[in-house]
Amino acid sequence: MDTELKIIGFIKSDFKERKETPKQGNEGGIEAVIQIKEEFSDAMGGLKPGMEIVLLTWLHKADRNCLKVHPRGNTSNPKRGVFSTRSPDRPNPIGIHPVTVSSINGLEIKVHPLEAIDGTPLLDIKNS
Amino acid sequence: MDTELKIIGFIKSDFKERKETPKQGNEGGIEAVIQIKEEFSDAMGGLKPGMEIVLLTWLHKADRNCLKVHPRGNTSNPKRGVFSTRSPDRPNPIGIHPVTVSSINGLEIKVHPLEAIDGTPLLDIKNS
Repeated sequence: MDTELKIIGFIKSDFKERKETPKQGNEGGIEAVIQIKEEFSDAMGGLKPGMEIVLLTWLHKADRNCLKVHPRGNTSNPKRGVFSTRSPDRPNPIGIHPVTVSSINGLEIKVHPLEAIDGTPLLDIKNS
Repeated sequence: MDTELKIIGFIKSDFKERKETPKQGNEGGIEAVIQIKEEFSDAMGGLKPGMEIVLLTWLHKADRNCLKVHPRGNTSNPKRGVFSTRSPDRPNPIGIHPVTVSSINGLEIKVHPLEAIDGTPLLDIKNS
């Protein structure tokens, strides 16, 4: 079974570091650009400004060997298994980001509100 | 960058073929079991019956080279780029399944309603 991910694009954002980003897009996410790779341009047909979409990202700074965390990074919360949390640290650090399309310009899609950091690889875009 | 997915478990379901399943869990999904691999058991701590969770699966029967589809498989719908659809056929066929935990028994978690077919690999469980 082929389980090697394809990177379909990258996030361009003013958030540069994991520690400065909010936990979720609706907790202070900003407008950001997703840059799609040319080879996937045919898959963009049908995307329109105002459309609600879901981005899947690969949270490349996450710790894939982490199985227990303090929820929301707060050490006064007792440690829990990552499957009952939203921690980015987990065996497959896939981020789910519900966003709205602001505008589309060639291979660039402007979306909001997004909390992913600059350079985050994009895995998928789905209709919401 | 390590972009090889880890399979954390498998779906056990009475749905055996892609053609017999509904498009989404809320369109006729059923109770199914997720079987977690022993090595990921520590990540299960905190999961409880009644909890709403999101499963991410690897839709292993999908066509990863497909960039355009007839939405909802209906050929009277004009073809669209897969990024503006919910088609399983796409570069990274990751399924998103909001479900509720029915019960937990060791490494087995019973959930509902789920539309994934028997044998579908599981990638992640997140708090909803």
